[in-house]
Amino acid sequence: MNIDLIVKNATIITCSQDHEIHENAAILVSGNRIERVSMIDDITAQELAGARVIDAAGKILMPGLINMHAHCGDTLFRGLVENSPLEIWLQTVWKAQAVVLAEAENCRLGSELGIAELLLGGTTTVMDNYWSPDQTFEAAIDAGIRMATGGIFFDEDGMDGHSSEHRPTQARELFDRYGNNSELFVGTMPHGTYTAGPENIRIAVEIANQNNGFFSIHAAETKVEQQTILERYQTSVIRHLNNLNALSPRTVLAHCVHVDDEEIDLMAQSGTNVVHNPLSNLKLASGFAPVPKMLDAGVNVVLGTDGAISGNDMDMWLSMRLAATIHKAASDNPAVISSRETLHMATLNGARALGAEDILGSIEAGKRADFILVDISGPHAMPMFDPINHLVFSASKNDVRDVFVSGRQVVENRQLLTIDMAGIQSRLARLQPIIYATLQS
Amino acid sequence: MNIDLIVKNATIITCSQDHEIHENAAILVSGNRIERVSMIDDITAQELAGARVIDAAGKILMPGLINMHAHCGDTLFRGLVENSPLEIWLQTVWKAQAVVLAEAENCRLGSELGIAELLLGGTTTVMDNYWSPDQTFEAAIDAGIRMATGGIFFDEDGMDGHSSEHRPTQARELFDRYGNNSELFVGTMPHGTYTAGPENIRIAVEIANQNNGFFSIHAAETKVEQQTILERYQTSVIRHLNNLNALSPRTVLAHCVHVDDEEIDLMAQSGTNVVHNPLSNLKLASGFAPVPKMLDAGVNVVLGTDGAISGNDMDMWLSMRLAATIHKAASDNPAVISSRETLHMATLNGARALGAEDILGSIEAGKRADFILVDISGPHAMPMFDPINHLVFSASKNDVRDVFVSGRQVVENRQLLTIDMAGIQSRLARLQPIIYATLQS
Repeated sequence: MNIDLIVKNATIITCSQDHEIHENAAILVSGNRIERVSMIDDITAQELAGARVIDAAGKILMPGLINMHAHCGDTLFRGLVENSPLEIWLQTVWKAQAVVLAEAENCRLGSELGIAELLLGGTTTVMDNYWSPDQTFEAAIDAGIRMATGGIFFDEDGMDGHSSEHRPTQARELFDRYGNNSELFVGTMPHGTYTAGPENIRIAVEIANQNNGFFSIHAAETKVEQQTILERYQTSVIRHLNNLNALSPRTVLAHCVHVDDEEIDLMAQSGTNVVHNPLSNLKLASGFAPVPKMLDAGVNVVLGTDGAISGNDMDMWLSMRLAATIHKAASDNPAVISSRETLHMATLNGARALGAEDILGSIEAGKRADFILVDISGPHAMPMFDPINHLVFSASKNDVRDVFVSGRQVVENRQLLTIDMAGIQSRLARLQPIIYATLQS
Repeated sequence: MNIDLIVKNATIITCSQDHEIHENAAILVSGNRIERVSMIDDITAQELAGARVIDAAGKILMPGLINMHAHCGDTLFRGLVENSPLEIWLQTVWKAQAVVLAEAENCRLGSELGIAELLLGGTTTVMDNYWSPDQTFEAAIDAGIRMATGGIFFDEDGMDGHSSEHRPTQARELFDRYGNNSELFVGTMPHGTYTAGPENIRIAVEIANQNNGFFSIHAAETKVEQQTILERYQTSVIRHLNNLNALSPRTVLAHCVHVDDEEIDLMAQSGTNVVHNPLSNLKLASGFAPVPKMLDAGVNVVLGTDGAISGNDMDMWLSMRLAATIHKAASDNPAVISSRETLHMATLNGARALGAEDILGSIEAGKRADFILVDISGPHAMPMFDPINHLVFSASKNDVRDVFVSGRQVVENRQLLTIDMAGIQSRLARLQPIIYATLQS
């Protein structure tokens, strides 16, 4: 076995099921996979020969973070409107999106900007939900992030100018084009139960099942949404999805803020995955998702950032810290949600939600070489009594120094290797006045 | 007037009362003060001669942040115990403190570590509350941070080995030693109404008044505290303090999570200042302080981080972001607390709480040259439609590149100029096993 890369002297936080930690250990990478985790003395001269060797002394090596709910393209509208009632905020953003997203190249630009941010912060896998998902896939392939996305389903005409009739074709084409790429994940993504009717959701489930893809949808995010579904279908969002056979281990529900105990049981029993997006839920005043209850019930809870219009950036470290913190206050109990559970929500649980626990989510032999090196030399990392507590409660995106996806280095010493930031900046400079002008129109 | 320093080409976010913003502007610094804010063309050749010139093109220049509630020394116990019920957590931390803080030099070490973290994150003024406050002052003077601290009052013997009889003497000595230093603030700091009886609080108020110092105390942080005070004095914490004549414009109350409308009015009418510590309140499950109500009532609300045992680091950017975000969810209203209010809580309001609005808290002629330069080249700063929204909702501590306090540069290109981090690290390496051993004792 030819070893291409050895990263040695690291504190390895594996994020394996039992959260094994290896001090002063190394990983050996061959092609796109981790050949093994090893003590330095167990590496042979033959393995060393020809391998690039990185000394990670004084750093943590851990799996890349898995962000299970994002809208990369929405970085274009970051901070356009703030602190407004939801309706005004939505109308403003939609008006801007309608102008800007009709051009697929703008979706591409937003995707690139979002991916740049994600990679710098140590996210190596992202589930994205946006118009023109082909642009998102292409941006991801070029940048080297592991992308999970798919065709949107939406009853009305979309921001991309297409009608709902076009959606099944678009979704199937994405499977045809990207479904055989073993580094990507393809699915179907109806926007929500209030924007995609039962027939469209059924088709989306069917296409996902036929192609062994994931099915993801916004669900039970707001009280207004629950009220709408109740009036329209005389049931709740989760029960409505259950009636449509949309709950399964391949299902990824974003938010689930407003769910009752019976709905939590439905999700647990069906193996449905839930993405918690704490920053978005706080900022949009959606509420506090019952994450401790969902974890107790055995739901596979994963983390996301949502897009930059509902949280301004896409920082998985902030997501972790908030997930580990806000439910203590919301449930009046400082003991809920451990650091280890939180770290799993951002790594191994995400892999499980993608049906990819065998290849992603932890530093173990045979898995993809998706890993990051985290600087622990700053004063906020001193003292360190438990590295997992440090990662969840004190580390930040800026501590990420190096990022590898499938063995390919994409960030080196906090610099992007695969994305032309200057190019993004100049394209964005041309687009920004057009976006801003939509506020006045 | 001799100009020592000119910082030009910056986007100046003044944080003045009206939040004036100057694009491509400069500040001229003479000694410890801002001589004026100027357009580049209005700077004379004579002013340029001999001045150090910093080109801040593509950066934001803004006032240093004012952290009004911290315990720098508690950085020693960062992450020692996590996710525990409050009682277990407190007992563990207190046991470690009792062992470690009996040595004044350990208080000094903790203060240095905390100050290093604060300066790197752009905090230029901090109100600290800790054992051995003389050590805190000395560490602050050496590091060049603007320190507000004073003698603790505590009915029981303290972690520093002193009894309550010693406290008035200690408090007065601090005024004698540091009260004439125009770069520092001295006050008195009873720990809380449940740990300092009425007589000790009265003495602390008296000493503060006699010396024109501030008076600061933890107040209404937890439900248990409210219950204790109710049982002991048949009233609430804030009314109890009011009965002791402890509410005034020189009073700084930390937390105020559990306060009713009448108490909010008491604080507003007396000019009492309230420090909101969102991260600590979340992580310790204290609850959600009624910040929108306090702001509406006219209370001067300022921001703090609390110590690293209740929030793991002391990051004022996270404090801002949380303050601007969590109350939206807690009050079911995405419009509460604007970005401009939030930024004032971290700057000008803090200056007001210190009785120092004439010299601190904004970038204006005649004020102290306490300012920071913020990098806006990262992808999370693109696009930027409103720099104040960016500062509150997307910027982070790692965007702070340069920090000046009273015209003295203390951080340059993210490196500390005044603190020997290697020295701190080696002293901490010796102390860490001793701290850790207290978990087993």
